[in-house]
Amino acid sequence: MDAVDIKGMMQGMGEAARAAAAELAFAPADAKRDALLAAAEAILAREADILSANARDMEFGRQKGLSPALLDRLELTPARVAAMAEGLRAVAAQEDPVGAVMAEWSMPSGLDIRRVRTPLGVIGVIYESRPNVTADAGALCLKAGNAVILRGGSESLHSSGAIHECLVAGLRAAGLPEDAIQRVPTRDRAAVTEMLTMTGYLDVIVPRGGAGLVGLVQREARVPVFAHLEGIVHIYVDAAADPEMARTVILNAKTRRPGVCGSAECLLIDRAFFAAHGAPFLTDLMEAGVEVRAGAGLTGSVPATEEDWGREYLDMIIAAKLVDGVDEAIAHIRRYGSQHTESILTEDDAVAERFFARLDSAILMRNASTQFADGGEFGMGAEIGIATGKLHARGPVGAEQLTSFKYLVTGKGTIRP
Amino acid sequence: MDAVDIKGMMQGMGEAARAAAAELAFAPADAKRDALLAAAEAILAREADILSANARDMEFGRQKGLSPALLDRLELTPARVAAMAEGLRAVAAQEDPVGAVMAEWSMPSGLDIRRVRTPLGVIGVIYESRPNVTADAGALCLKAGNAVILRGGSESLHSSGAIHECLVAGLRAAGLPEDAIQRVPTRDRAAVTEMLTMTGYLDVIVPRGGAGLVGLVQREARVPVFAHLEGIVHIYVDAAADPEMARTVILNAKTRRPGVCGSAECLLIDRAFFAAHGAPFLTDLMEAGVEVRAGAGLTGSVPATEEDWGREYLDMIIAAKLVDGVDEAIAHIRRYGSQHTESILTEDDAVAERFFARLDSAILMRNASTQFADGGEFGMGAEIGIATGKLHARGPVGAEQLTSFKYLVTGKGTIRP
Repeated sequence: MDAVDIKGMMQGMGEAARAAAAELAFAPADAKRDALLAAAEAILAREADILSANARDMEFGRQKGLSPALLDRLELTPARVAAMAEGLRAVAAQEDPVGAVMAEWSMPSGLDIRRVRTPLGVIGVIYESRPNVTADAGALCLKAGNAVILRGGSESLHSSGAIHECLVAGLRAAGLPEDAIQRVPTRDRAAVTEMLTMTGYLDVIVPRGGAGLVGLVQREARVPVFAHLEGIVHIYVDAAADPEMARTVILNAKTRRPGVCGSAECLLIDRAFFAAHGAPFLTDLMEAGVEVRAGAGLTGSVPATEEDWGREYLDMIIAAKLVDGVDEAIAHIRRYGSQHTESILTEDDAVAERFFARLDSAILMRNASTQFADGGEFGMGAEIGIATGKLHARGPVGAEQLTSFKYLVTGKGTIRP
Repeated sequence: MDAVDIKGMMQGMGEAARAAAAELAFAPADAKRDALLAAAEAILAREADILSANARDMEFGRQKGLSPALLDRLELTPARVAAMAEGLRAVAAQEDPVGAVMAEWSMPSGLDIRRVRTPLGVIGVIYESRPNVTADAGALCLKAGNAVILRGGSESLHSSGAIHECLVAGLRAAGLPEDAIQRVPTRDRAAVTEMLTMTGYLDVIVPRGGAGLVGLVQREARVPVFAHLEGIVHIYVDAAADPEMARTVILNAKTRRPGVCGSAECLLIDRAFFAAHGAPFLTDLMEAGVEVRAGAGLTGSVPATEEDWGREYLDMIIAAKLVDGVDEAIAHIRRYGSQHTESILTEDDAVAERFFARLDSAILMRNASTQFADGGEFGMGAEIGIATGKLHARGPVGAEQLTSFKYLVTGKGTIRP
């Protein structure tokens, strides 16, 4: 396909998505739930087709020389297929956000005012190798009454296609417009370029993937973007931290899954804590196989350099630094952080309050592992991603944050003096 | 000043605004309220200075050949100065949105999660001749804990300057950073061009003014924009409308103030209503001096042409058209509307529900005058504008919609399995 064809194809998908969104906006909650449940059924029934499509993608990936980590993300197993179906059911079981009354009040003029949730419209999702994003993103967009255009990674073309067919089967079974969930059927990168500027058709774009993809989308998109570029996650160990709790939480925050965005990347340790208790968690980390890049006064695997502050490793590496109290920790995080997630370990309420008030990350935690930075762990059923921007969506983005609202105003022939 | 100087000046203002915003984010509610009350005092105390600055602007405006309507917008009187002070007090009296807990829940993991309001950051306001926008916009941004950069119309340079000094006096009296409310001190248009792309410093831009200004900002800005380009406001007179109520509401919706964005621009009249009751409100409108541009089958001042559908007159002109029921009205509004405000006149609940569900304007009304499309009338104390976009802010934008949020998560040494 040449560039002109791609443009025409994408515009056609955009038109179809707009039309589907106009219908979906007032689709009954039951129909959307039925579509998700039917899609889950279809995924289980077609497990063999999905796995064989995935085998083709894996073969393509091996020939392309993808790293073992990327191949692992691409691979589907019966357990992963079952988890996708389970995810669809979890979203189906959530309360329908559309039509919910967010606020309701009356004015002295005689007007009764309600603010109610509405769908956003049409969402574009651009992702990399994980095929399950097809199911998660499609389901969340549908739940919120939005049409969606999915553009999966070129490696997962066949897997995503097979999953997408199940979603469409669900829409069909529930009598909803099939164009509500569309998928870009080509590996051509021109489709991505086109999506980024389709302001007439897309209301928002959600990129899911590495910093390369997200950075490209954030730089080039004319359509608004919900995303985070990096998760430079800090844990501050306060003078009043419980030393045993610090050991448990820090080990979990780094090693449970070092490659997720909520994995801790930098420890800030109060000097008074260190003087009283040392830093036994650094030893724990090193024993667990983590490379500790230690600032002045601390003993780690290697010394930290200036480049280690504000670095997202997504790996079994962590930076550590001594600071003078919560204010120096706050200053460090403001300078080097990415406003994703930070945690304070302390038994002192006033210090915790200061950390919560003076930092402005999407998620601030106290005495908890940063690995909880996840829509499911926040009770959202699933997430389409985590946003660090401050407009509209922030933190884990579930169905509710994929909505807008409108005001419904009722009078009795009321006129304005 | 040359372009390089303007760029440097604006970047400097941006840096200062960022620093002020970081402090404002945790400023006590009392300090913000005190600043607003002190600013109101200063405005009353300096009435003479403000009026004499305004006299210089009026002289400049007359020499520039501004229309009487524009000169009226520019002019300040003792009553208008008092109204500005009153507006500041009204915003001061509103509840502080920052820190408010929007939602609070616990998870089976043991985490307690709160979603709390935070300021957005730094807001840019670009407006035309009305000097009072300086006070309103400055006050709303401060209330929500945001720093603001104000760029008023070149005609109102001295008036805005005098009002801005009062706001700064308020900040100073309350011990808040003076850079929280900054004003671009030049008529040079290069400052506007610079603001539109200051994505590193501004979180959002609010343009206040005519379609020329708003269109320019919407087209050129790289910073997100809260605005409406046009208010193509429709009223649908249903078969089940009360004929007397229709007369009262329609006359008010057009003639109370024909130049505001909530003024009705197009009447859609159900054929069955017309067969039963005629259209006495068209006669009322014409007697009140309104030019009625009437579609086929209706008698008005002149016949309507295709160009009259989807037209914003902001004047004593209205279009009128016969339609076959609510669905044809909905189709017309979808095709020609601007998603600002529409009203349905009907006693039939099911028809009203259909109108509310199937249209997606920021404000939908039933049996009420569209002149109520205003933040004050919605109970927001004041508004910085009305937004028709679907991201973040929609409808009248008050202090609450100038905020973002963050999640505060508390555990007890909680780790993720």
